[in-house]
Amino acid sequence: MSRKLDALLRRLARQLAPDELSFEPAVIAAHAGDKWFASSPPDAVALPREAESVAKVLRFAHEHRIPVTPRGAGHGYVGGCVPVKGGLVLSLARMKRIKEVHPGDFVAVVEPGVVTSTLQAAVERRGLFYPPDPASRGDSTIGGNIVTNAGGPRCLKYGVTRDYVLGVEVALAGGSLVRLGSRTHKNKTGFDLARLFVGSEGLLGVVTEATLKLLPLPPFRAALAAGFSSARDAARAIRAIFAAGFLPCALEVADAFTLAAAQKRTGSRRLAGCEAHLITELDGQERSVRGELRTVERVIRQYAPRFVERAFGAAECEAIWQLRREFSYALRDTGLTKLNEDIAVPRSRLEDLFAFAARLQRRHGLPVACFGHAGDGNIHVNVMVDFDQPGARERSEAALDELFAQVLAWGGVVTGEHGIGLAKKRWWPQAVAAEARALHQRIKRALDPRGILNPGKFV
Amino acid sequence: MSRKLDALLRRLARQLAPDELSFEPAVIAAHAGDKWFASSPPDAVALPREAESVAKVLRFAHEHRIPVTPRGAGHGYVGGCVPVKGGLVLSLARMKRIKEVHPGDFVAVVEPGVVTSTLQAAVERRGLFYPPDPASRGDSTIGGNIVTNAGGPRCLKYGVTRDYVLGVEVALAGGSLVRLGSRTHKNKTGFDLARLFVGSEGLLGVVTEATLKLLPLPPFRAALAAGFSSARDAARAIRAIFAAGFLPCALEVADAFTLAAAQKRTGSRRLAGCEAHLITELDGQERSVRGELRTVERVIRQYAPRFVERAFGAAECEAIWQLRREFSYALRDTGLTKLNEDIAVPRSRLEDLFAFAARLQRRHGLPVACFGHAGDGNIHVNVMVDFDQPGARERSEAALDELFAQVLAWGGVVTGEHGIGLAKKRWWPQAVAAEARALHQRIKRALDPRGILNPGKFV
Repeated sequence: MSRKLDALLRRLARQLAPDELSFEPAVIAAHAGDKWFASSPPDAVALPREAESVAKVLRFAHEHRIPVTPRGAGHGYVGGCVPVKGGLVLSLARMKRIKEVHPGDFVAVVEPGVVTSTLQAAVERRGLFYPPDPASRGDSTIGGNIVTNAGGPRCLKYGVTRDYVLGVEVALAGGSLVRLGSRTHKNKTGFDLARLFVGSEGLLGVVTEATLKLLPLPPFRAALAAGFSSARDAARAIRAIFAAGFLPCALEVADAFTLAAAQKRTGSRRLAGCEAHLITELDGQERSVRGELRTVERVIRQYAPRFVERAFGAAECEAIWQLRREFSYALRDTGLTKLNEDIAVPRSRLEDLFAFAARLQRRHGLPVACFGHAGDGNIHVNVMVDFDQPGARERSEAALDELFAQVLAWGGVVTGEHGIGLAKKRWWPQAVAAEARALHQRIKRALDPRGILNPGKFV
Repeated sequence: MSRKLDALLRRLARQLAPDELSFEPAVIAAHAGDKWFASSPPDAVALPREAESVAKVLRFAHEHRIPVTPRGAGHGYVGGCVPVKGGLVLSLARMKRIKEVHPGDFVAVVEPGVVTSTLQAAVERRGLFYPPDPASRGDSTIGGNIVTNAGGPRCLKYGVTRDYVLGVEVALAGGSLVRLGSRTHKNKTGFDLARLFVGSEGLLGVVTEATLKLLPLPPFRAALAAGFSSARDAARAIRAIFAAGFLPCALEVADAFTLAAAQKRTGSRRLAGCEAHLITELDGQERSVRGELRTVERVIRQYAPRFVERAFGAAECEAIWQLRREFSYALRDTGLTKLNEDIAVPRSRLEDLFAFAARLQRRHGLPVACFGHAGDGNIHVNVMVDFDQPGARERSEAALDELFAQVLAWGGVVTGEHGIGLAKKRWWPQAVAAEARALHQRIKRALDPRGILNPGKFV
């Protein structure tokens, strides 16, 4: 750190509460990266306890042009909160109060550092429901979920984080605190500025409070897990479920490579011979769900599944999801580095994607494992790399280049839920046309004219 | 029109196809207002046939600082497309092609001038579903629905127009055409700029194409209509429906004044003695819906309804909605001018709102009729005025001031679905804090630095 920056940050420390700015090497090291591989230490870490402190940090940083990289729990997958330009990391982890859960208004008001599953448990105790369910929900925070617009399996039926953000308080680059949106479920007052910050990856402002929409808690859940002899049969089953007028709560698919790894890990005899695996979950009133599950099973059985397993109620459903989580661990067991690319394709391209991934695997000599949110076309394509092998990095980059080019040619997108961050920055110019990138720049300049917020990322 | 402006517009006409710019008095008169009372003729009307013409108009207008007021079908309720500064009205009515309906991808690609119910019929023929259902859907267009973020009864379960906009092509003030978003159901590529234009009331850009998300068509609908002895009983019934874990497709309420007018119009004996009326609609798989309707009826019967009427299938449901439409006509029958204020309150304030409206009525000697989307807290409060009476205008303005002040004090909003336009402009500074208004200005300047788009409105 330059002496000038050091002096400035010491000055900022005096404007905050004693422990709201840390220069501790251990704290700095703990705030250098997220779940992606890139890492870069900040010069100091701000750990504000309240919105006013966040505003103070931003006002000071704006005045002195100090980079500020906001951070939730650091559970992102794309290096979105890596402070590549140094300066400050601004962690919202300490602002973790659930300020209000209102069963009559069906809203919760929370600070950004509340862990998602903590909020979910708190509202479910009162018969309410906060649907977004990213895999990391036991670790990631509402603030992180908002700035990445986090999704998850249930988003097929219920929508993503954006659809639950009614209002926010945001600290802007200049240090002002702005309240946007409201606590009503419908609102048409002015532009939809609250949601401009949803998915903004920390580049436009820092969310210091959120008012979230809640739903009535569906009283019952049930699920089917089925193994198929081919990806084609699974894709046809999915189409048939939609054609029967169902919008399931979740429709999750896994491919042959994933299943082979899972079989090795779990010793499951059921998975033998399966080339695709499909989980269908329904929720709602118990009698309806039980009846509908029977119908969905009949639909699925037209495609000759090798097995169908039923789960009724939360505990049995969770057991099925536990198997799904084993898929991830199984890929880790391979000892390879998993490049998890959360591309999304138009829904009809699912079968094409699986076939393309198989070709990619053969062409580049790299295992490719696909699983994910089939209903949304949002599939996690995991390119598995042994970086100790000569040429592995080049081969994996070539494979990713081909993957993204094909996905974009289909009208798909390079990221369905993780965001651009650093990981996808290389493909940003291909993914977004010049005019749209210019519009991103205009919005960025309007909100952060000195470019202090999360610099070094895609805008 | 000044001679300079006239010369400029003649020059623009030469850049467009022969009939894309009209100076006809009848055409000008037909584009002076919407369904609100304000009216102001433009100097000319652009009627482009394609996006490139829209871009040309905006490029020229930007260069020469000519006001441009974009317009859908002119079915708005707040004067949002009244060209108060003259210049051009830019009508999208001719761009009405449904470019694509893709049952595999569950998307439709449309031009902005497509009438909403036309699109709905086109997708339903293919087993697909476009849920947003503003009352004007037989007249209003998708483009108008997008820039006003139109709602409707079904939005309780299905969300508003915003939730169905996956991508847009937008013509910006400078004349560039930008494609934002995509055709995938999930997308986390960059900022959510497509949706920044949703609800922007023509102030930020002109939508020239939209890619809309579709759902599987629910195979069955059923509804209950119930009359209650008090607004309190209806409000309690609504709470109990939610508490039983239901998120109905629609929950529509009407108050005593509305019912009295409806009784007079229809001669219905059923409505005698009813102080509140509730429609609950469910949709989904037929057996589930039939079973759930029985449960909802049991819930409702706890609150001693004076009658309950059941409807199964689309035709019977439509008959119930027809009665609901009679409520509007019945208010018109009174001969009074209906100031329809679409406020929204936090869901628990429904009963308070009805009581407040009754007090307002007594205090100002003006009939007040409330009905609307109870599930969202989005109630149309109709202040009924005879403008021929001395002092009527002042009394109605005082009543609206009180109404909005109370709604805002409850954490509600002055508009749930119609927008600000001209009608709510007077209350804009009370409804939105100074910092948030400043942020609106910043965004407006970034996108329309010369202020040519829909000038004279709230930003």
